Amino acid sequence: MSYSIAPLSELVQALAMLPGIGGKTAQRLAYHILTMPAGKADQLANAITGTRARVRFCAQCGNLTDRDICAICEDPSRDSSIICVVRDARDIMAMERSGLFRGLYHVLGGTLSPMDGIGPDQLRIKELLGRLNGVKEIVLATNPDVEGEATAIYLWRLLEPMQIKVTRIAHGVPVGGDLEYTDDITLQKAMEGRRPMHQA
Amino acid sequence: MSYSIAPLSELVQALAMLPGIGGKTAQRLAYHILTMPAGKADQLANAITGTRARVRFCAQCGNLTDRDICAICEDPSRDSSIICVVRDARDIMAMERSGLFRGLYHVLGGTLSPMDGIGPDQLRIKELLGRLNGVKEIVLATNPDVEGEATAIYLWRLLEPMQIKVTRIAHGVPVGGDLEYTDDITLQKAMEGRRPMHQA
Repeated sequence: MSYSIAPLSELVQALAMLPGIGGKTAQRLAYHILTMPAGKADQLANAITGTRARVRFCAQCGNLTDRDICAICEDPSRDSSIICVVRDARDIMAMERSGLFRGLYHVLGGTLSPMDGIGPDQLRIKELLGRLNGVKEIVLATNPDVEGEATAIYLWRLLEPMQIKVTRIAHGVPVGGDLEYTDDITLQKAMEGRRPMHQA
Repeated sequence: MSYSIAPLSELVQALAMLPGIGGKTAQRLAYHILTMPAGKADQLANAITGTRARVRFCAQCGNLTDRDICAICEDPSRDSSIICVVRDARDIMAMERSGLFRGLYHVLGGTLSPMDGIGPDQLRIKELLGRLNGVKEIVLATNPDVEGEATAIYLWRLLEPMQIKVTRIAHGVPVGGDLEYTDDITLQKAMEGRRPMHQA
């Protein structure tokens, strides 16, 4: 005989749909949600629905925003002649944390993946082509994996004839990393991308 | 200049309040919630509020249930002469997965912890004393940590004069564990609790 409680199972199932949340974690979270103060649980539920209602994608770059145009695109102090192309809005957060890049972004909304039915028409490539007026450099910052590389190569071939400088973020040994534990392809990229010491 | 989005930050903060969810995980979850189909997000939000509204504690044992008395307490095939005392309802789920115990449960709702202001009055001990009619054995299944041991000893001293058999779950080397990596106190308990081979 099973003693399962229907509403609790629903909550566990709904939580287990989230990425990185397995069955046991979902159960622990569900129990916590049941025993936390009612105000906090309502706050969480409202944040889920409220955020979805109030957050949308920037009409220009595709970043997450609560206005039509995101704060980065609207900031006059940023350099609009250089656009960094990323896969999704989370990558913008990561780039902004590093704090070095002062240009604008463009979110593709994915990477080319024919196996999953994602071709150029599924990505925000047309929107990128519509933003090229006055742009001097496009930095391709898709992930250094198969899909990210394929997408970078596709965009490079598309943009090159347009007399725009197209660059790719550097691949190499991560800072704090250990040569001994670095994979062959990364080492290969690090060697290919070596620069004279005074530039570094 | 910060480019944070207020409603997104609210969702990240609400998620980060959950146990085991740090800042980065909360951000990943928030992004996933933003980009998942609207129906799924509503389902999650409704499960959070709905489960809290529909799930309560069993009036007899303190287990989670969607009725007044939980399915375990109501099951006539279970042995009502033996009660297993646990810290919280999650422990019942764990015990039921093992499938061996066929008696009833009693949830204390915590363990004695004077540092946190949790004394006997904060636990469901009065409710346990009210259930002793016809009970032959109380199994103390609080965790084998300081608070759990203290609570077990407290209950044992309370119940012993009442001519009820009081037992404690066995402590020892976990199945699949490795003697070499087992801590001293567990090994000590395993040695103290040794049994003749034919009983095992």
